[in-house]
Amino acid sequence: MSGPQYLTGDKAGIETFIDQFDVFLFDCDGVLWSGDHVFPGTAETIEMLRSKGKQLVFVTNNSTKSRADYKKKFDGVGISCKEDEVFGSSYSAAIYISRILALPPPKNKVYVLGESGIESELASEKVPFCGGTDPSLRRDIQPEDFTKIASGELLDPDVAIVLAGLDFHTSYLKVALGLHYLKRGAKFLATNIDSTLPSAGALFPGAGSTFAPLAKSAGAEPLALGKPSQAMMDAIEGKFKLDRKRTCMVGDRLNTDIQFGIEGGLGGTLAVLTGVSKKEEFLEEGAKVVPSAYVDKLGDLLG
Amino acid sequence: MSGPQYLTGDKAGIETFIDQFDVFLFDCDGVLWSGDHVFPGTAETIEMLRSKGKQLVFVTNNSTKSRADYKKKFDGVGISCKEDEVFGSSYSAAIYISRILALPPPKNKVYVLGESGIESELASEKVPFCGGTDPSLRRDIQPEDFTKIASGELLDPDVAIVLAGLDFHTSYLKVALGLHYLKRGAKFLATNIDSTLPSAGALFPGAGSTFAPLAKSAGAEPLALGKPSQAMMDAIEGKFKLDRKRTCMVGDRLNTDIQFGIEGGLGGTLAVLTGVSKKEEFLEEGAKVVPSAYVDKLGDLLG
Repeated sequence: MSGPQYLTGDKAGIETFIDQFDVFLFDCDGVLWSGDHVFPGTAETIEMLRSKGKQLVFVTNNSTKSRADYKKKFDGVGISCKEDEVFGSSYSAAIYISRILALPPPKNKVYVLGESGIESELASEKVPFCGGTDPSLRRDIQPEDFTKIASGELLDPDVAIVLAGLDFHTSYLKVALGLHYLKRGAKFLATNIDSTLPSAGALFPGAGSTFAPLAKSAGAEPLALGKPSQAMMDAIEGKFKLDRKRTCMVGDRLNTDIQFGIEGGLGGTLAVLTGVSKKEEFLEEGAKVVPSAYVDKLGDLLG
Repeated sequence: MSGPQYLTGDKAGIETFIDQFDVFLFDCDGVLWSGDHVFPGTAETIEMLRSKGKQLVFVTNNSTKSRADYKKKFDGVGISCKEDEVFGSSYSAAIYISRILALPPPKNKVYVLGESGIESELASEKVPFCGGTDPSLRRDIQPEDFTKIASGELLDPDVAIVLAGLDFHTSYLKVALGLHYLKRGAKFLATNIDSTLPSAGALFPGAGSTFAPLAKSAGAEPLALGKPSQAMMDAIEGKFKLDRKRTCMVGDRLNTDIQFGIEGGLGGTLAVLTGVSKKEEFLEEGAKVVPSAYVDKLGDLLG
């Protein structure tokens, strides 16, 4: 088996590669940008693909932003994007809860460990929720809370699901509440399992780190609905009616993005080296997750 | 092999059992009390053992309290205790850092993820530290913090160790700082690995849950210095000059307390059923960690 094709600087190789696909699924953080830093040539590459008539979908595991928030982020950094082209892990989770689980009310409330992106997407699917950005939970746990949580006084009896995503405002109190919902039988879901978040050219704790205390104390792992979960691929396919063989996944992480594309049976996967995974990881003997091709940065597709 | 001896109600059995030992090591949470609730007969049992001339050591994985704090807790609930009889995981960690690691200054500072108990014990061993209860870190992470952490501006260059214990004030900011110290080569230590904390008759997130986000995002597990780490047993033996064969460990958790006693080669272990582990766990066929004996509650030793 030959290794992945290195496309940076290979004008003919790039053209042949792009021509194989009608649809490109893009990871965002680590591919288009890192935090507020947009990688050089990103906007031009997106335009080039649009000019060739490609369908673009921005598939992100970042649960802190809703599709509308993401559209604003694209506008702010000067990359063209329609709200309908964004497919986030919060949206994926909201669809799973409302359409697949479809629990009958009133016992269908979601306790959220995460930011407003999750809340917006749950609201868009008319799923009731609590927790999340509730200001009354943005405080330290008090001695009396232990008794009130143990007795159930602080718990909402309608909660049937705990959904965790990246939370910049996590706290002992919020984790303790989540633990007690799980102990009372709530289903445990996560928007995604990324252990780290690329930002400012470095790595920070990701969603997988947000739910780690909950998973540890409950002795249970959540069902994750972002990449590489195929529940997300199925939802994308259903919405965009894409031909998987004519679709390419572009990403920086082997164990989320590239694995997501391979397991989804896509026609190709393209790794970029501006994010988490290093080329040594897929070039080494016996590497388990190997992309079809790779470039140093997305902008190298301009040739 | 015969199973553990059930001592509740067995007056003669209790007497024979107690006579085998000169020293009793006690776990506290889940054995003497749960939160502020003292189990019936606890104070009288402690007095009975003292009257028989037994040496008592209170060995706790709770890192939030210093030995002095623990003494106050005992006084408050009416159980006799000398400060010198308390051996906590924070003290164990402080001794390991100051006497075993013994890093040369100035690059010997400890970044603490935890409460004041850890800080007091580090101070008692003259180990410099930062983080912990520092009020300037009791805030939400701000966008500019990502850049300042990535660049190192917010990091103390003298930090060589990250020490995590139970933290009721954990936050994304504190975990992010810990992650970046680890990425710069700091050693990763934990006071203990308990995933849960018994309180108010229920289970809450424990120290193992505090450091879970750090372990997940760093992809590394800490060296734990509380039970069942034998580093703690060695330190207790050194301090109290005990004969392990004449020593009994009393605890409620199989995978910390009882395992700690068995691996330490103690003469016996006694499980109480007022805490985390259920008797089914050690009575079932093929159970891995089995105590020498068990009682429903500590007070049953009064016969």
